[in-house]
Amino acid sequence: MDKKIKIGILGATSYTGAELVRMLAFHPYVSIDYVSSQSYDGQKLSAVFPGLMGINDDVLISPQDAQKRDADCVFSCLPHAASAGLLLPLIDGGIRVIDLSADFRLKDPEVYKKWYCDAKYTEHPAPRLIEKAVFGLTEHYRQQIAGAQIIANPGCYVTCILLPLLPLYKSGAQIEWVIADSKSGVSGAGRGLKQNTHFPEANENFSAYAVGHRHRHTPEMEQELSFAAGKPVTMTFSPHLLPINRGILSTIYIKTSLTAAECTDIVKKSYAGEPFIRIREPADLPTTAAVAKTNYCDMAFTGGEDGGHPVIAISALDNLMKGASSQALQNMNVMFNLPETTGLLL
Amino acid sequence: MDKKIKIGILGATSYTGAELVRMLAFHPYVSIDYVSSQSYDGQKLSAVFPGLMGINDDVLISPQDAQKRDADCVFSCLPHAASAGLLLPLIDGGIRVIDLSADFRLKDPEVYKKWYCDAKYTEHPAPRLIEKAVFGLTEHYRQQIAGAQIIANPGCYVTCILLPLLPLYKSGAQIEWVIADSKSGVSGAGRGLKQNTHFPEANENFSAYAVGHRHRHTPEMEQELSFAAGKPVTMTFSPHLLPINRGILSTIYIKTSLTAAECTDIVKKSYAGEPFIRIREPADLPTTAAVAKTNYCDMAFTGGEDGGHPVIAISALDNLMKGASSQALQNMNVMFNLPETTGLLL
Amino acid sequence: MDKKIKIGILGATSYTGAELVRMLAFHPYVSIDYVSSQSYDGQKLSAVFPGLMGINDDVLISPQDAQKRDADCVFSCLPHAASAGLLLPLIDGGIRVIDLSADFRLKDPEVYKKWYCDAKYTEHPAPRLIEKAVFGLTEHYRQQIAGAQIIANPGCYVTCILLPLLPLYKSGAQIEWVIADSKSGVSGAGRGLKQNTHFPEANENFSAYAVGHRHRHTPEMEQELSFAAGKPVTMTFSPHLLPINRGILSTIYIKTSLTAAECTDIVKKSYAGEPFIRIREPADLPTTAAVAKTNYCDMAFTGGEDGGHPVIAISALDNLMKGASSQALQNMNVMFNLPETTGLLL
Amino acid sequence: MDKKIKIGILGATSYTGAELVRMLAFHPYVSIDYVSSQSYDGQKLSAVFPGLMGINDDVLISPQDAQKRDADCVFSCLPHAASAGLLLPLIDGGIRVIDLSADFRLKDPEVYKKWYCDAKYTEHPAPRLIEKAVFGLTEHYRQQIAGAQIIANPGCYVTCILLPLLPLYKSGAQIEWVIADSKSGVSGAGRGLKQNTHFPEANENFSAYAVGHRHRHTPEMEQELSFAAGKPVTMTFSPHLLPINRGILSTIYIKTSLTAAECTDIVKKSYAGEPFIRIREPADLPTTAAVAKTNYCDMAFTGGEDGGHPVIAISALDNLMKGASSQALQNMNVMFNLPETTGLLL
Repeated sequence: MDKKIKIGILGATSYTGAELVRMLAFHPYVSIDYVSSQSYDGQKLSAVFPGLMGINDDVLISPQDAQKRDADCVFSCLPHAASAGLLLPLIDGGIRVIDLSADFRLKDPEVYKKWYCDAKYTEHPAPRLIEKAVFGLTEHYRQQIAGAQIIANPGCYVTCILLPLLPLYKSGAQIEWVIADSKSGVSGAGRGLKQNTHFPEANENFSAYAVGHRHRHTPEMEQELSFAAGKPVTMTFSPHLLPINRGILSTIYIKTSLTAAECTDIVKKSYAGEPFIRIREPADLPTTAAVAKTNYCDMAFTGGEDGGHPVIAISALDNLMKGASSQALQNMNVMFNLPETTGLLL
Repeated sequence: MDKKIKIGILGATSYTGAELVRMLAFHPYVSIDYVSSQSYDGQKLSAVFPGLMGINDDVLISPQDAQKRDADCVFSCLPHAASAGLLLPLIDGGIRVIDLSADFRLKDPEVYKKWYCDAKYTEHPAPRLIEKAVFGLTEHYRQQIAGAQIIANPGCYVTCILLPLLPLYKSGAQIEWVIADSKSGVSGAGRGLKQNTHFPEANENFSAYAVGHRHRHTPEMEQELSFAAGKPVTMTFSPHLLPINRGILSTIYIKTSLTAAECTDIVKKSYAGEPFIRIREPADLPTTAAVAKTNYCDMAFTGGEDGGHPVIAISALDNLMKGASSQALQNMNVMFNLPETTGLLL
Repeated sequence: MDKKIKIGILGATSYTGAELVRMLAFHPYVSIDYVSSQSYDGQKLSAVFPGLMGINDDVLISPQDAQKRDADCVFSCLPHAASAGLLLPLIDGGIRVIDLSADFRLKDPEVYKKWYCDAKYTEHPAPRLIEKAVFGLTEHYRQQIAGAQIIANPGCYVTCILLPLLPLYKSGAQIEWVIADSKSGVSGAGRGLKQNTHFPEANENFSAYAVGHRHRHTPEMEQELSFAAGKPVTMTFSPHLLPINRGILSTIYIKTSLTAAECTDIVKKSYAGEPFIRIREPADLPTTAAVAKTNYCDMAFTGGEDGGHPVIAISALDNLMKGASSQALQNMNVMFNLPETTGLLL
Repeated sequence: MDKKIKIGILGATSYTGAELVRMLAFHPYVSIDYVSSQSYDGQKLSAVFPGLMGINDDVLISPQDAQKRDADCVFSCLPHAASAGLLLPLIDGGIRVIDLSADFRLKDPEVYKKWYCDAKYTEHPAPRLIEKAVFGLTEHYRQQIAGAQIIANPGCYVTCILLPLLPLYKSGAQIEWVIADSKSGVSGAGRGLKQNTHFPEANENFSAYAVGHRHRHTPEMEQELSFAAGKPVTMTFSPHLLPINRGILSTIYIKTSLTAAECTDIVKKSYAGEPFIRIREPADLPTTAAVAKTNYCDMAFTGGEDGGHPVIAISALDNLMKGASSQALQNMNVMFNLPETTGLLL
């Protein structure tokens, strides 16, 4: 490569931002041009994340200053609404962006409004851009990602649940209902301080939250499952808080005429040659430890033996990696026509 | 009370045995006559569990020696098959026993054989005693427990799942199917060393095991649900290994015509006045931390809002306490006509 | 007892406050008259601590309202300065108080000022009361505690380090220097949210803080060691943050002419008959797990074998229990002439 | 490079072996020729470590078969004694070896005998090779490592403690005594099952072990400190078991005429340009999280302010990385004249 790809990172002091910096710092084809943060503007990134000392000691710039900088690709690790707001001028200026927030994931601005808007943000910040955005589930949108200007990087629960399910729905198999019981490490809740993620309250504890049909990530999953099925799909989704730093494991109950073995066959065909999807056997079910700090999504199918019982898919990934930052990097590699695994091994 | 109840404990060096000792040591109406262990015979119990120093420094006796001792009540914390084998002569000698193993839980010896027998133990060790045994789910068998000689203390998953479900089935409500997705702390796997419970492999990890319809505790649950429903009931049960010491939380998906509010009403009525059942609101879901080191089972009902979706019960208890040792003690209090909460508060 | 002791608790929504409530709720000789909290005024205590549901569902009252209530004994779990401020009128009204803050621990108001005062609190709030306060290390001040109106309950590090050291200093043995390397569970840092106690940053991490001679608890220890030695004593103290909920273990290096065996003898004599001090052998060193959720302080002496090397004391306690709330309760039992172990076993 | 370096790994199913495989699999200049294991002979390495699926799915060969294979460099992750026994014929056949066991670390076979020999292994297995072995602390023996056939890779505690101390001793500064209080994650105890590393006993626990002067790694440290000082040095070393997977933090008390700032200056000069040593400020002390999964050793100096008090060094590294496998790889890079950071970044 003649020139390195110039990267900007908004929201660099989030956990997903720090992961991106850690990977991009050693990526052979990019250079990090700036790291930006509203709250830590003027401080060194490595003062916020001591592990980055010697890896990236840049001073964080404000989002306002970031607007003035040129870049080939900007990653946004900002919260929803704030993200689209700051990306808008960059997109209009022709910069390619990878948005880790929810802002460009939902195709229907009314659905976005229902789940993400409030008194402060009453409308989607840029409805005209929604159709330009490509849903960044690399294995399913690779071709569109290659040419996209805006990537709506999917969330961690969503990636973990869609990867085993999409091939089944795309296969045209009959699926009566789906329940996803997901368990996520605490880093998925972000770096902001809350009582339920205070160490003495999260440690040695396990809890459900937002169970039922009310989690804001459900519409995102239903949208993609409906696209895959070619008809409206609804599902039940129950997230839980797991006392580990990173990792999501989803236990997905699928009422279907398929057997677990048939499901395994379908996903094996669908993901043949995929470097970051590992299909496991029922005797060797996925675990969060096996995928921690990697871009892998592991999955297996079991259950359903005696007629009435649902098939059970188990899938696992690292919520900060394949569930966020390393999938974002995988998308960047696709966008810039680089070998897709660059910077993602080890 | 004139005389203290004389207690013997078989398998005292298991986690459940140690919990029993800890509670019984301060129980005002009992005295621990002996603690027994095959593996640690001749050592002090407090050498095996340093936390018991000053609480119980008795020397462990062999199971053979325990056979020769008199007692009013014997708790067995031995593994299945071994447990019934050693309890048999005690029962025949008229001693009341509380068996924490699976040996007397299943009413059908063929079902027991299918799930628990192997080349070494080919048959149930004492089929003639099965009908004398009372299933020790205190809130549902209190009257029978009071007069029983043999208590089959239910397992931890089973207690956690049956407590929210039994009132619904007993109410005659229409229930189409049930899926219990349970997550258990590692102490539930016992004190024996295994690779998957070695600290560096269990810590920062989360995994499913024996998912589908194949866990040996499923028949025990199906038996009790069928009794409650008055007709055969089957269910799907998926256990997971949670990186905490103690606690089980079950997320139970119930396809029913009832609403979550109706379920809440049914259990509130069913458990009115129960000292160890706490019914929570959907906004205040059970957590494992809230029940750790107590005899409480916390539960709440949510979900099911828009027609198609299942009602979701969340229940939580401490697997070593209400899921084993403190429920055993609760049963002992009932058997000996003591105030049921004695030794169980705090 | 004719009448129950009427208890008030200030700062009941702190971890130490919740522990006090949990123990006092089942204490046979007391009744909790009120629980108070500035931040949660008007809410139920059990809404803040779901584990207390059914144990104490009182509505929290404001500190201002607490001032108007009568009580036989008030525990303060408030932060320093705030604590003395609110206790002052109660003390003047004749109420006996047990202060878990640092406000009455230091006998020299100048030392207090140096370590605890700032722009907001520039002076000790009640220097005239300092001499009335008794240092609440029960085993060493039992007689004075019995008659005291004000108990200055010692901190968790301080209790853990003083208990093994005081008998040595009192014995008149020659001690050249002492280094205490202490490791504390995260609950010791309180319930307030901080970045370094956010789960993803405290979990799977270990760090030192305020090492050297600069921790504000050092003067408290030096004061008591100096009293014991009858001459000024200084020491080195290094606290560390341990990724567990509760427990402190201190590794204390003691340059002395005594051997480890002689140290063991001295403490065994000093603590003979003490119900909450357990002296262990070098082959059975204290651990935090063995004392978790108890009022025990475990200790052992080792090292020092070949002349030059220091004797090493290892001591462990639960920072919320013997390091705070259960020692406070032990002091209350002494103050009101109750059996000292009441409410403290199990 | 024309040809890749052919690598063999003995003891590949240890934690250090698996780490080596993970790093070497993506190292551009090597190919893993074989992985070997006594216990898992004939199984896939990725069946033992599911995280290695797709990274290394080789079938493990027996140590006997490994003897017959050619290789440019063999890493041994075997236990002491076994390690030297199997390396001996390889060394005699001219293969360069990196031994992660203790077998070649001690220069005096009598000292080795005292700490490592027993009824089974009564003597050092190859005393004639000791003088050929180079101590693999890369930053201090780089030149000798480049030309060595045998590398005695230092242990994790040893690396963590020597790195901050060696420059001070080499500087000729006056050091009266040193106490190292070290805390290690559980993976440091290896993959073998023991009661104290069973999850429910290690989790939420903290304990000291082998405190005093009796740990077998002390002689290794004293040997190197004595070389550095040019005179015999002894020290006190206390290891503790920390409930995290990986990471060691040492709090090192140094009685010296130097100030903390002078110590910082000395190590900064000594380690100028070193890619894997990070010197931190007293306000930004090392933590285990900042070095986890990296080859960094972080260190800082503080304390000692008022004359009498010791200077305190805090150092941290990942026990499986800079404390074992990644330092072994760093040494391999030096031995084969590759850029020293190859395969070690990220």
